[in-house]
Amino acid sequence: MRPSSSQSEGLFGELFARGAVAAQVDDRAWLQAMLDFEAALAHGLAAAGLAPADAAEAIAARCDADLYEVSEIGRGAAAKGTPVPGLVKALSARLPDDAARQVHRGATSQDVIDTAAMLVTRRALVPLLDDLAAAADACAELAARYRDAPIAGRTLLQQALPVTFGLKAAQWLSGLDEARAALEEVRARVPALQLGGAVGTLASLGEHGLAVSAEMARRLELPEPALPWHTVRVRPALLAGVLGSAAGVIGKVARDVTLLAQTELGEAAEGGGEGRGGSSTLPHKRNPVAAVAALACAQRVPGLVATMLAAMTQEHERAAGAWQAEWETLSELLLLTGSAAAALRESLESLEPDTARMRENLDLTGGLLMSESVATSLGESLGRPAANELLGRASGRAAEEQRPLRDVLLEESEVVGALGENGIDAALDPESYLGVAGRLIDRALEAHRG
Amino acid sequence: MRPSSSQSEGLFGELFARGAVAAQVDDRAWLQAMLDFEAALAHGLAAAGLAPADAAEAIAARCDADLYEVSEIGRGAAAKGTPVPGLVKALSARLPDDAARQVHRGATSQDVIDTAAMLVTRRALVPLLDDLAAAADACAELAARYRDAPIAGRTLLQQALPVTFGLKAAQWLSGLDEARAALEEVRARVPALQLGGAVGTLASLGEHGLAVSAEMARRLELPEPALPWHTVRVRPALLAGVLGSAAGVIGKVARDVTLLAQTELGEAAEGGGEGRGGSSTLPHKRNPVAAVAALACAQRVPGLVATMLAAMTQEHERAAGAWQAEWETLSELLLLTGSAAAALRESLESLEPDTARMRENLDLTGGLLMSESVATSLGESLGRPAANELLGRASGRAAEEQRPLRDVLLEESEVVGALGENGIDAALDPESYLGVAGRLIDRALEAHRG
Amino acid sequence: MRPSSSQSEGLFGELFARGAVAAQVDDRAWLQAMLDFEAALAHGLAAAGLAPADAAEAIAARCDADLYEVSEIGRGAAAKGTPVPGLVKALSARLPDDAARQVHRGATSQDVIDTAAMLVTRRALVPLLDDLAAAADACAELAARYRDAPIAGRTLLQQALPVTFGLKAAQWLSGLDEARAALEEVRARVPALQLGGAVGTLASLGEHGLAVSAEMARRLELPEPALPWHTVRVRPALLAGVLGSAAGVIGKVARDVTLLAQTELGEAAEGGGEGRGGSSTLPHKRNPVAAVAALACAQRVPGLVATMLAAMTQEHERAAGAWQAEWETLSELLLLTGSAAAALRESLESLEPDTARMRENLDLTGGLLMSESVATSLGESLGRPAANELLGRASGRAAEEQRPLRDVLLEESEVVGALGENGIDAALDPESYLGVAGRLIDRALEAHRG
Amino acid sequence: MRPSSSQSEGLFGELFARGAVAAQVDDRAWLQAMLDFEAALAHGLAAAGLAPADAAEAIAARCDADLYEVSEIGRGAAAKGTPVPGLVKALSARLPDDAARQVHRGATSQDVIDTAAMLVTRRALVPLLDDLAAAADACAELAARYRDAPIAGRTLLQQALPVTFGLKAAQWLSGLDEARAALEEVRARVPALQLGGAVGTLASLGEHGLAVSAEMARRLELPEPALPWHTVRVRPALLAGVLGSAAGVIGKVARDVTLLAQTELGEAAEGGGEGRGGSSTLPHKRNPVAAVAALACAQRVPGLVATMLAAMTQEHERAAGAWQAEWETLSELLLLTGSAAAALRESLESLEPDTARMRENLDLTGGLLMSESVATSLGESLGRPAANELLGRASGRAAEEQRPLRDVLLEESEVVGALGENGIDAALDPESYLGVAGRLIDRALEAHRG
Repeated sequence: MRPSSSQSEGLFGELFARGAVAAQVDDRAWLQAMLDFEAALAHGLAAAGLAPADAAEAIAARCDADLYEVSEIGRGAAAKGTPVPGLVKALSARLPDDAARQVHRGATSQDVIDTAAMLVTRRALVPLLDDLAAAADACAELAARYRDAPIAGRTLLQQALPVTFGLKAAQWLSGLDEARAALEEVRARVPALQLGGAVGTLASLGEHGLAVSAEMARRLELPEPALPWHTVRVRPALLAGVLGSAAGVIGKVARDVTLLAQTELGEAAEGGGEGRGGSSTLPHKRNPVAAVAALACAQRVPGLVATMLAAMTQEHERAAGAWQAEWETLSELLLLTGSAAAALRESLESLEPDTARMRENLDLTGGLLMSESVATSLGESLGRPAANELLGRASGRAAEEQRPLRDVLLEESEVVGALGENGIDAALDPESYLGVAGRLIDRALEAHRG
Repeated sequence: MRPSSSQSEGLFGELFARGAVAAQVDDRAWLQAMLDFEAALAHGLAAAGLAPADAAEAIAARCDADLYEVSEIGRGAAAKGTPVPGLVKALSARLPDDAARQVHRGATSQDVIDTAAMLVTRRALVPLLDDLAAAADACAELAARYRDAPIAGRTLLQQALPVTFGLKAAQWLSGLDEARAALEEVRARVPALQLGGAVGTLASLGEHGLAVSAEMARRLELPEPALPWHTVRVRPALLAGVLGSAAGVIGKVARDVTLLAQTELGEAAEGGGEGRGGSSTLPHKRNPVAAVAALACAQRVPGLVATMLAAMTQEHERAAGAWQAEWETLSELLLLTGSAAAALRESLESLEPDTARMRENLDLTGGLLMSESVATSLGESLGRPAANELLGRASGRAAEEQRPLRDVLLEESEVVGALGENGIDAALDPESYLGVAGRLIDRALEAHRG
Repeated sequence: MRPSSSQSEGLFGELFARGAVAAQVDDRAWLQAMLDFEAALAHGLAAAGLAPADAAEAIAARCDADLYEVSEIGRGAAAKGTPVPGLVKALSARLPDDAARQVHRGATSQDVIDTAAMLVTRRALVPLLDDLAAAADACAELAARYRDAPIAGRTLLQQALPVTFGLKAAQWLSGLDEARAALEEVRARVPALQLGGAVGTLASLGEHGLAVSAEMARRLELPEPALPWHTVRVRPALLAGVLGSAAGVIGKVARDVTLLAQTELGEAAEGGGEGRGGSSTLPHKRNPVAAVAALACAQRVPGLVATMLAAMTQEHERAAGAWQAEWETLSELLLLTGSAAAALRESLESLEPDTARMRENLDLTGGLLMSESVATSLGESLGRPAANELLGRASGRAAEEQRPLRDVLLEESEVVGALGENGIDAALDPESYLGVAGRLIDRALEAHRG
Repeated sequence: MRPSSSQSEGLFGELFARGAVAAQVDDRAWLQAMLDFEAALAHGLAAAGLAPADAAEAIAARCDADLYEVSEIGRGAAAKGTPVPGLVKALSARLPDDAARQVHRGATSQDVIDTAAMLVTRRALVPLLDDLAAAADACAELAARYRDAPIAGRTLLQQALPVTFGLKAAQWLSGLDEARAALEEVRARVPALQLGGAVGTLASLGEHGLAVSAEMARRLELPEPALPWHTVRVRPALLAGVLGSAAGVIGKVARDVTLLAQTELGEAAEGGGEGRGGSSTLPHKRNPVAAVAALACAQRVPGLVATMLAAMTQEHERAAGAWQAEWETLSELLLLTGSAAAALRESLESLEPDTARMRENLDLTGGLLMSESVATSLGESLGRPAANELLGRASGRAAEEQRPLRDVLLEESEVVGALGENGIDAALDPESYLGVAGRLIDRALEAHRG
């Protein structure tokens, strides 16, 4: 096959076919996986004594995608409903009659495509998991390095209480690790051989059907399922759900990056380098382009997952439409989740946190952010209710008069009496009110290393 | 641009990139539409006195997709977030300095892509509407030809009462016509120029911004909207909703075709021709492959519509992710709806109804299907309640004894007395109980012609 | 019917069943709409001479939801597949035999539910459109009042160039108005009577079917469609698409409000009042709770639209599952879009923009935001290329040295020579570089008033 | 709390709130789960020495949903963004001051709702899994009983080759078992305590935060996660994906039931009993109402899964909209999947297969269905290519002349010579060409029992 202009070289390819997954889900990858099926089948037939070993060898030798043009295989698919007859014809045409006769024997188009889909999936998940692992590693490094760097914690996009940037990164890390674990598990369990023949009985192979499928499973390193699963689509559906979860958590991290990178926050930026994210006419901009690309990819995933799930309602022994709808949808799910992972990795590996800006932003509320902290300190001597009430009053005054809370507190004799000026300053210090943030980071890092 | 291996030539292209829409939404079509924007912008600048007319001419002369490679344009998009900088660079490189300086002046990447998306949409809808119209014409012909051909009406997949095949076709027709009308309207109203510059104020064009956009709108034959719509995405959203409705009704018709084509019903088949839908090992099969392809395409559309709608939540003056997520999604929506329309057209134009099988199937219940008809006839003399009760009893007996309802009725003296044997036969005749089917068909045909 | 604890009184009702739509889509509203169908049918039968007028009057007199318990109607629906047999039984039980006999005559369950769905829709759209109109009015007021108030325009969440807050509000306005126009149109065109009888032929009404349906349409003020549309679901699908577009644009506006309300931007806040959006322990917070609720509602809509579209693939003359899936989905679509509109209205009507903070934020980049403006001014004397190059250099230096752009520019003799200090200041003034913002606002306001 | 009119008693409740899941996801169930959180928190505070044990006891004693009205709790949620402040207020009002002061201490609204969601999920999955297990058991019984009953295998809704009804049931069984296994695993792993306080640091609990959460996890029997997961939504997302897979496979089985129940196939019917699925005016109908309800529920699930996945993009330490969108969506996912399972169970437990009709339908093609079988038998003596060619010719003739394949084969001397009349009959017998169907059934049954 001539090197096809792959999706990644298209107009939008750098954004939506980024990273190494793209090459695992393109037409060539599917074609190779379909040929791998045919090669394994030939060997399976030979192992079961149904075909001569040399025919199997001859077939396997022609099961190389480089020998075919995708367009040759796809042509005529409309008349047959799948490209498999085209594949069988093309493969057979490259073989002597004896071997040609054994091609595809006992199998049906769905066997080829479903098994190919599983091979494509298993292969595509390798770079996808690599990029996710690298993104997680980048988070782990950020979590460790910025373990004690205070930053405003924000709820409903409002500053609430301080956290650390390390804790934010640890949260990202735990999410990415959870998604990876789920994907690893799905990768180990879900992909399976599909071999059922025309209706799932392998009738044309007589008594030998299961021997053939056992050998094929062994060769393709795919588990042999208890039953063929041509219209029981739990496998692709579970896969879709987990890919959707992975894309979602990527989106969460990328969303945070874009929010932190806002001009007004300025708490993190993607590394520049060669005009990345910049603009000649808007020189102050440092667009978080990788995070934006990750978000764009992730945003397209939930609808595709819904398509996979809705396609589960498949009729009898082969569906009229729902099955076919899965093919490209699965490819896109892998492609977009993979692109999102690759983009997020770039974003995180280049991320430049700005702890000074984090610190400045913590002061934006003039200390009101630390009101709960002061109340907690004060509560030790005055009791929680009185402390809360006192702080409520002081905070209200600070807000109304637009003065720092510290100044107002210094005018409150009860507060000064209980905490002293030093105590007030201590309670107003974001670093004094981080709870168990450090221990949570340690937990996330341990889990990541373990 | 070298003739790229388009999506329609891929492994699954005959199924999911069928018909003439594919060529209107591929990378080359997008590139041409982007170039059309740049050409119109250059003319707009010239018309507003901002650029020399000969610079505009020089630019427009280079705005031909054949002069570029898609990969050249797409390269570098990751660093900038869109392929537009690549486009501007490539276009400028083909121009003398004076003209190059005017390229893309005043516009932002989003202006180019949004306007291009609208051009792509408007162009892609032409063949899509053609195929829908042809499918509707085929329905109209079926509705007229089979106006009086009785067929079992089925509710919850159970035979209920007779209808005519013409009425089924008229229902299909009305649905396709409704979808076409909605698409025509959307095509006329929704696509609009987008020109706002960096943030929607056209500031770099000074006072001339609206003059430029007016001229561009005129040249591109796109309405000029009241405001730029960079983050107000009602236009693409409405388009997506209507495409979803069109794909849905295509799916309905295709679903009916596959159901009618079931071996056990055998009431319609897609025309064979050159082994279409056949199988060498299963010679009795006549797979309704075109209807299946239409269903497969249609099944992928709702998730994409959801993606377009979810992407409406766009931030400030340009979205970080949601906007970008629209690009390929819109292309796919057009492509899949177009492919579904093309496939349905093929299915319907070749459809071979089998009125004999329809008639046979009407007899499957031994006349029970006509029980309501007999009750209605009988009600004229006995009153509805008594007639219903009598028929309920007779039907029950017929079902229990597995005898034709006719035989049981002939044993009921009240029935024979009221209707006579001829009257019973008349009431058992499906053609006698078709209500206003004919008039409804006429209405649908009139509406179609009008 | 006893006043049921409606959805709006539930645990999450104030968030997801807000405003006046809730009462139009609850069980009672559906029940009344179903009864309205039965009343209209009785009158239709009478008008066609099929039933005595007094029977019709008697039936209509019992078609009041207050006479029934929802649970009475719903009971037994599992065995029949719809609650209509329960309704017919309950209605008939409240009538003398003569009238009871005419109840539901000629109709099928789907006729009742589909027509009721259309009545529910038409009624629910009234308060929904009211809330949308009020939200648009609030935008119009903001657009007019803040016509000239500069605010940073932000792309990819980065400050890009100045716009005005009025232009932001005008953008919101145009989006809400577009959504309203689309909803108005859908409300006028889409809802239609459904009356087809068991399979769409109205056979049991003999020749009188169309007379009955004409009279029903007149009484219910619903258009009579050319054909019954029991399995041609373009109507509900188009409705769903437009509701999705409306929810999406609501989400856009609400998203902007939450972003502007960020502590670090502080450019707008929802009006407080009675502890709204506040927190006792976090006194500085002013959570934009209404905008958050609007976003939460809007976020749930795209998936429901996809459900409606996927449900279009309906079999033969009544679907086995897909039709039934529409009922509650349509209710939820109306409810959530309505709740979103009600919440957005509250948010916008109480919105408190802070022009001082807008102005402060415009200075955050030390003038780099205005670099393009200076280049444009400078270009008039130096030519665009030289001006751009000069500004690129100056901006780079300002960024690197962390000095105001103004200071750097004052050191550039070419700039000072061309513009003078006053000219530099003028070009650095955000108000000097707003392009056609004011004219665009005027356009939006005109369109809104028109 | 007064026994609220639950969703299951509504107009459509018997269809969409069927079975025992409904009571586990209604407002009362949520309220109880929220109270369970507050009780566990009180005990956790006491265990950590932060609150007196008797206060904890007093709080726990009031954490009974029967003591509250849902409307009391929900009121005011709009102003605060969640019903938790209402809950805290209502609970505190029922306590002496000392205890009231400890209520909700250290927690935030999200802690309550997220933990409650996990409790609701864990509880709702119990009846859901029960119904799925019962449905699987019903399949197992069918698979065993009809192990050798031939039925047409159908691909693209066309008869292809024989399978057995037992194999169909075994396929259903394996799908349901796969879904159950995935749900069991998700139930064991996904639900986890959420306790993070305002921003995830548990700062107001000082050093004791993790002690409190450990005790709470113990009491609630929920795993304690490594980190709070307030904006890392992998847990609910994975849950949604698996629920979607379960609903999908339910839909597949229900779809097959409705197809088998078609009048023209008549191969299975749902048990009648008390007018179930019947119609007074259409006495021949036996609508598969339970399967239809299962399909209707299942059809609504994919869109909800997409909503859950799209909601993963949550900002910072608490999302503005996306989090809130999860609440009712999760409830609906559980409710609809549970209803689908309950309905499918009813359908399968009452299913009445008709082996005679299965057999009759196998004859519909006049033996063409067995063409491959004859070719296979013949291939043993003539070689596969010659046999295939011969059968192709004979089948074509049979189809064209509309004669049984047997008659045509008896005229072919080569066939008669090779197989004899008995051999021809044997090869035409569907039971002779079932491949490994029996062994696959055994595998499915073993897996089910294991």
